[in-house]
Amino acid sequence: MNYKMMGRLFGLILCAESVFMIPSLILALTDAEMRVALGFGITMGLCALIGGVLLLLCRGAKTDFYAKEGLVCVGLSWILMCLFGALPFFIGDDIPSYVDAVFEIVSGFTTTGASICTNVEALSRATLYWRAFSHWVGGMGVLVFLMALVPVGGKSEGFTMHLLRAESPGPDVGKLVPRMRYTAMILYLVYVVLTVICFIFLVFDMPVFDAICTSFGTAGTGGFGIKNDSLTGYSPYVQTVTGIFMLLFGVNFSCYYLLLLRNVLGVLRDEELRFYFGIVGGAVLLITLNIRTLYATFGEALRHAFFQVSSIITTTGFATTDFDLWPSLSKAILLILMVVGACAGSTGGGLKCARALLLIKSFIRNIGRVQNPQKVAVIRVNKKPVDEKIVSGTMAYLCAYVLIVLVSFLLISIDNFSTVTNLSAVIACFNNIGPGLETVGPTGSYAGFSDFSKIVLTIDMLAGRLEIFPILALFSRKAWKRG
Amino acid sequence: MNYKMMGRLFGLILCAESVFMIPSLILALTDAEMRVALGFGITMGLCALIGGVLLLLCRGAKTDFYAKEGLVCVGLSWILMCLFGALPFFIGDDIPSYVDAVFEIVSGFTTTGASICTNVEALSRATLYWRAFSHWVGGMGVLVFLMALVPVGGKSEGFTMHLLRAESPGPDVGKLVPRMRYTAMILYLVYVVLTVICFIFLVFDMPVFDAICTSFGTAGTGGFGIKNDSLTGYSPYVQTVTGIFMLLFGVNFSCYYLLLLRNVLGVLRDEELRFYFGIVGGAVLLITLNIRTLYATFGEALRHAFFQVSSIITTTGFATTDFDLWPSLSKAILLILMVVGACAGSTGGGLKCARALLLIKSFIRNIGRVQNPQKVAVIRVNKKPVDEKIVSGTMAYLCAYVLIVLVSFLLISIDNFSTVTNLSAVIACFNNIGPGLETVGPTGSYAGFSDFSKIVLTIDMLAGRLEIFPILALFSRKAWKRG
Repeated sequence: MNYKMMGRLFGLILCAESVFMIPSLILALTDAEMRVALGFGITMGLCALIGGVLLLLCRGAKTDFYAKEGLVCVGLSWILMCLFGALPFFIGDDIPSYVDAVFEIVSGFTTTGASICTNVEALSRATLYWRAFSHWVGGMGVLVFLMALVPVGGKSEGFTMHLLRAESPGPDVGKLVPRMRYTAMILYLVYVVLTVICFIFLVFDMPVFDAICTSFGTAGTGGFGIKNDSLTGYSPYVQTVTGIFMLLFGVNFSCYYLLLLRNVLGVLRDEELRFYFGIVGGAVLLITLNIRTLYATFGEALRHAFFQVSSIITTTGFATTDFDLWPSLSKAILLILMVVGACAGSTGGGLKCARALLLIKSFIRNIGRVQNPQKVAVIRVNKKPVDEKIVSGTMAYLCAYVLIVLVSFLLISIDNFSTVTNLSAVIACFNNIGPGLETVGPTGSYAGFSDFSKIVLTIDMLAGRLEIFPILALFSRKAWKRG
Repeated sequence: MNYKMMGRLFGLILCAESVFMIPSLILALTDAEMRVALGFGITMGLCALIGGVLLLLCRGAKTDFYAKEGLVCVGLSWILMCLFGALPFFIGDDIPSYVDAVFEIVSGFTTTGASICTNVEALSRATLYWRAFSHWVGGMGVLVFLMALVPVGGKSEGFTMHLLRAESPGPDVGKLVPRMRYTAMILYLVYVVLTVICFIFLVFDMPVFDAICTSFGTAGTGGFGIKNDSLTGYSPYVQTVTGIFMLLFGVNFSCYYLLLLRNVLGVLRDEELRFYFGIVGGAVLLITLNIRTLYATFGEALRHAFFQVSSIITTTGFATTDFDLWPSLSKAILLILMVVGACAGSTGGGLKCARALLLIKSFIRNIGRVQNPQKVAVIRVNKKPVDEKIVSGTMAYLCAYVLIVLVSFLLISIDNFSTVTNLSAVIACFNNIGPGLETVGPTGSYAGFSDFSKIVLTIDMLAGRLEIFPILALFSRKAWKRG
């Protein structure tokens, strides 16, 4: 292990976290929320101090780095970031239990949006901002952010690559350009530009603070609301804009890079993208027809269906209506969308469309094999053959996924909530969605769970965000490279 | 395709089905249930006629046979058997809808035990017997039965092997002895002997007819009851005997063959068997502690826990109590047991312990790979290395499993039952268990579903019994051979 390098990285992360908290501190001071200001102030001081000491101690680190160190680094960085990120909630007394505070900030950084707060409107603006910002920076990744900003690993290209690959969601993040640092920069540039556009659209019909928080939540596909009823109270315009942008942030970011290069055809031909929009279209249509009678006009039903589908498939978790009251078919569609998730290489979570597509293709191939066992069938995505290692890696990912869901479901059942609550809570946390059904539905919260269950769900959120086996993602990336 | 050979096989099956119905006809005549007797009589005549004609037309068939023909044969045989097997219910007016009748008999042959009858005590004894017998013959397989009895494929060893492999549950049925016909005979001999022992134990405290039907249901791990409250009304002695025998019929039959050869050590060392009894022990312990307060004594709680665990993991589906009223943890454990299922090569359904064990081992290996990507790790079962093809085949099986469950869940959600009802109905049918939770719980029935949903669930039951991709099972068998 290259401990000095890891120490340097952790130092950088803590310093960055300290800087990230500046707007919250200013907000707390402006609002004269002294207890909250103290929380942010103490945490910023701690982060800066420990971070600074680490940076001093780990000067002149060697840049030799292996894949497994990259994975360990990412895991530890996230845990560190969350443990310190929870402190302002706890010290500031907005969330009096530290387990709850960690749950909340992990939910933020992993862009889950599951909350233990039953009354978010009672939270200080500083806390609301910190929750929303955690979505934004967690969506694209803190390490990716650091890499884009400072040359973390000195001259070592491999180091940057390992970290980027381990932190980015989906089996898809390859190099867009030869230098990994520039890849990170391009990704963040696209991200910032899209977020700003989203903010501009929203601010027309929303207070500035609300628009900032909502665009952070939308960009990171997080889902923390600043109102108790999520987005229900906002205008249809705001809801529609948010719906569209959630969908856009669920698209593989390399598609936007291709668009920048004016390779429109490449984007249109992308199978994952077609699959993604195909599912969204089908789901919106079916749900609209299914819930038609619940709303006054077809347009209203369509708006709610579109918003909810967009919110769930991108694993954001904003709500404009209580979909727990919808008919079973609509709920079944939403549950399946939860599992599928957004595109690889986006800020969304879930299994990812790329993996779902691959699993369906391999399922079809296996049916073909029954007819003709001797036939050698190669699975193709975007007309390129997919390495068998990627196919089996994707299947192994599904197995891990099923196992973790079942074990977590069993563990949190101890709290004796209903089966649907437990199962949907695990799926909603593991896929980084946020709201589930019944007790943890769009109008509920995770407050009722025991500390033990909260810890299980916290681990699920982290496992979901960092994709269980970074190793499976590692060999998946080779052939999924685009552009 | 070797159509003549297939015709001969279908002819044999129809003739056998005609013979299988003789006891029911006698029962109907004894009870003076003329309408029911007519139902069985007409069906027997039809089966004998069509079967006889097919046998005459397909004399002197060639015995060349390919794997894919074996698979098609098994699938078609089962469908044929079910379509004719449903006729007595329909003509005899015990089940007035043909879709319902097919659902019921498919549930019988696949040893599911899911019923559309809300009042089974109103059914004629002839019908009750036919339901119970369908479990028994479906459990070990009709084709296996034919092979044991008559030399179906003439001299062709390959033909018998293909059919046996395609019809037997689990990735495990290899040759016990060099000749496949003798393997089929040994399997059925063990099956008959165990069933008779079960009957003898039961008849001490049960009417003869009840004991026959219950031992058929237990042996086939089916679960059709002859009382509306399943086994609730019988004595604790009967319940305990049934619980123990369900567990025994969930064991890989090759273990009994090893016992016959006095290879006790080989049985004790069998990893699947240890895994199976380990899960059962753990589940019984946890559930007993969890439901302790619901029952008067620890002994009673233990008895109900043991019976339900045994009934669910072997996918039988008998009930001594309404487990839908148990705490969430107990229900979660039962739901997971439903998915795991019994041992390969038994009459039980589900994913099978052998597959679950392999998936867990490959999961652990993948964690190891994260630490050390270069390391080549071989998965071992019973100390023998497992071919990578089998590992990936098992994963592909899981994928198919998940896909089919999700699609079926979506389709039956149209009926607007609760999410738990729909999900548990699909899992209960696909894994050939029978009762699910809520509407389809131990005290409910499948009567409320629409014809469309019933057809979906019927297909699920068949797909579950015949294991989706016989091809995946095919290459799995090589290394799973024992003895």
